[in-house]
Amino acid sequence: MTAMGKPDSLYIPTYEDVIAAHERIAPHIHRTPILTSTYFNELSGAELFFKCENFQKAGAFKVRGASNAVFGLDDEKAKKGVATHSSGNHALSLSYAAGRRGIPVTVVMPRTAPDAKKAAVRGYGGTIVECEPSTSSREATFAEVVAETGAEFVHPYNDPRVIAGQATCSKEMMDQVDGLDAVIAPIGGGGMVSGTCLTLSNIAPDVKIYAAEPLNADDAARSFRAGHIIADDAPQTIADGLKVPLKELTWHFVSNYVTDILTATEEEIVAAMKLTWERMKIVMEPSCAVPLATILKNKEVFAGKRVGVIVTGGNVDLDKLPWIKG
Amino acid sequence: MTAMGKPDSLYIPTYEDVIAAHERIAPHIHRTPILTSTYFNELSGAELFFKCENFQKAGAFKVRGASNAVFGLDDEKAKKGVATHSSGNHALSLSYAAGRRGIPVTVVMPRTAPDAKKAAVRGYGGTIVECEPSTSSREATFAEVVAETGAEFVHPYNDPRVIAGQATCSKEMMDQVDGLDAVIAPIGGGGMVSGTCLTLSNIAPDVKIYAAEPLNADDAARSFRAGHIIADDAPQTIADGLKVPLKELTWHFVSNYVTDILTATEEEIVAAMKLTWERMKIVMEPSCAVPLATILKNKEVFAGKRVGVIVTGGNVDLDKLPWIKG
Repeated sequence: MTAMGKPDSLYIPTYEDVIAAHERIAPHIHRTPILTSTYFNELSGAELFFKCENFQKAGAFKVRGASNAVFGLDDEKAKKGVATHSSGNHALSLSYAAGRRGIPVTVVMPRTAPDAKKAAVRGYGGTIVECEPSTSSREATFAEVVAETGAEFVHPYNDPRVIAGQATCSKEMMDQVDGLDAVIAPIGGGGMVSGTCLTLSNIAPDVKIYAAEPLNADDAARSFRAGHIIADDAPQTIADGLKVPLKELTWHFVSNYVTDILTATEEEIVAAMKLTWERMKIVMEPSCAVPLATILKNKEVFAGKRVGVIVTGGNVDLDKLPWIKG
Repeated sequence: MTAMGKPDSLYIPTYEDVIAAHERIAPHIHRTPILTSTYFNELSGAELFFKCENFQKAGAFKVRGASNAVFGLDDEKAKKGVATHSSGNHALSLSYAAGRRGIPVTVVMPRTAPDAKKAAVRGYGGTIVECEPSTSSREATFAEVVAETGAEFVHPYNDPRVIAGQATCSKEMMDQVDGLDAVIAPIGGGGMVSGTCLTLSNIAPDVKIYAAEPLNADDAARSFRAGHIIADDAPQTIADGLKVPLKELTWHFVSNYVTDILTATEEEIVAAMKLTWERMKIVMEPSCAVPLATILKNKEVFAGKRVGVIVTGGNVDLDKLPWIKG
C-alpha cells in the first residue's frame, strides 16, 4: 500500500535533527501532559492516551516546527525575519516564535480571514499583509513580501525544519507512555504525521502509525491508495486545519511509514468533538477531533491496544460552535 | 472580622480525618493536575496555579466528600444505601461513589431539574425520586425516602465526612505547589472552602484563604461581615452551584479561618469563564470561574503572590453557553 515517494529537492530530516530540534525549542514550548479517560477507554475498547497539544503555546502543536525554524536561523538571516502564508495555527505559531526571538514576522492572509485570527497574529507581534482569497493573489503578494524584506520563508509543513520540530511531540509521548501499540494523528498537509513517522521509524518502528482525515477532504487517503499525491480543489470541511494537500516531503513520510489513513464524516467529527468537551473537559478544535471519531468508528482496529492520540490544537471560535445553530 | 461560630451538634472534623479520608478515597478519585497560564499570570500580576477538579471523576471536586462518606460506612449501614437531595454535582458524585461501592443511592430532585442532570445520575446507577420544586415538597419527599429505605443521609456540605473529603483537594495542592501565599475557591454552601480551611489551618496556617462568590448570591459575604449566617431566599445567578446558604458546620470554618470573601458580577463571571476556555483550553462551569473573576477585579490583593485557584468543576450544558444568545 505504500510507494517509495522521495522528494526531489528537499532535505529529508533525520532523528538527529529531531534531537537537536527538541533541545533548541525546549525553552519556548510546553512539555504537554497526557490525559486519559475511563469513559473513552470503555467506549472504544482501547486504552487511549491523549497528548494534549491544545495546551501548547499558541494553542497548537505547530509552535514546535515554527520555533525550530525560527531559532535555527543564523543571526544574519534572522535579522531579516521570517514570513509565511497561513490563516491558521501556523500563522499564530510563527508569530509567537518570531516574537520570542525578537525578529520580524510577516504573514500573508486572505482579507476574508476571521478577525479573531488576525487579532491573534497581531497580538503575538506579527505583521499581516492582506491578499485576495485566491491562490494567484496569495502567491503574488507573498513574492512581493519576500522581495521587499528578504525574509526566510517557513512553509507550514513542507519544510524539514518544521517536520523535525513536529517530531518532538511523539518523542515526548514515547517518554511519557510505555508500551504504545499505535499512534494516531490528524492529517492535512501531513506535517504532524510526518514528524510522527520520523520519530517512530527511528525509535519505535513497531508502533503503528494511523492518520485520520475528514471524509470531505480525503485527498491524503486517496493519495495513499493511489500511490501518488492527489491534491483536492478547495475541499469543504469543518476541520479547517485539514484542507491542505500533501506535498513532496510529507508524501515521502506518509507513503513510507503510515499503516492506514482512516476517515470520518462531518457529523462524526462534531460528535467526537462535543463528547470530548463534555467528558474530558478540554477544548479541542474540530481538526483534532478527527482521530477520536475514526477510533470510535473503527473499534476493531484499536480494540485492546494502547493508542497514543495526538490532540493537535484548541483554537476554536467559542462564539460559533458547530453543535449550536446560530 | 471573624466570629467564633461553633456548630452545636455536629462533629468538627480534624486533620487526622483528612488523612484517613485521603487514604480511603484515593482508589476512587483522580489526583488532578495543576495547570499554569502565562497569559493569566501576566493579566493578573500574580502567579496562579489552577487545581483542575474539572478533570475529577464525575466532573467535580464533590466526589471527594461523597466518596469519603460512602466508603466510610460500615457494611451494615452501607447495605441500606445512601440518599441526598441535590440537582447538581453532589447528586452525580454520590451516585458515582455508591456505584463504585455497589450500594443503592437515592436522589431527591425537583421534577423541573434538567434532563441532562437526571440522565447523568441514572448513568451512574442512581435512583431518582422526583419532588415539586419547593422546599416543603423536597423535605417531605426526602423524609419518605429515608423512612422507606433506611438510607444514610449525606448532606452536600454540612457533614463532617464531606468536609474532610473536600479537604483532600488542598492537601494534594500543597504537595504539588511550593510556597503558596494564598488559596482561593468559590463559596456556596461552603464545603470546599471549609475543607480548605481544615487543611491549611493545620499544615500551612500562613497561607491566606479567600472565598469567591457571585454578587447576586452574596449571602456568605454578608454573613461574613455580619458575624452570623444570613441565608438568602432563592438568589439568581448563573453560578448555579453557589446558590445555597452556609450551614452551622461550614460557618464554623468560614468564620474562623477565611481572610476575605470577594464578589463578582454575572458579567464578570461569564467573561472569566469564556476567557479560561479560550486561553487555557479547559471547560469550567460558571461557578468555578468566580475565583478568577474576583482575582482579575482585585489585582492589588493578589499582585506578586503565588495563588492556588481551585477549579471546582466542569459540568456545563454545552448546548446553552452563557455567551451565546439562544
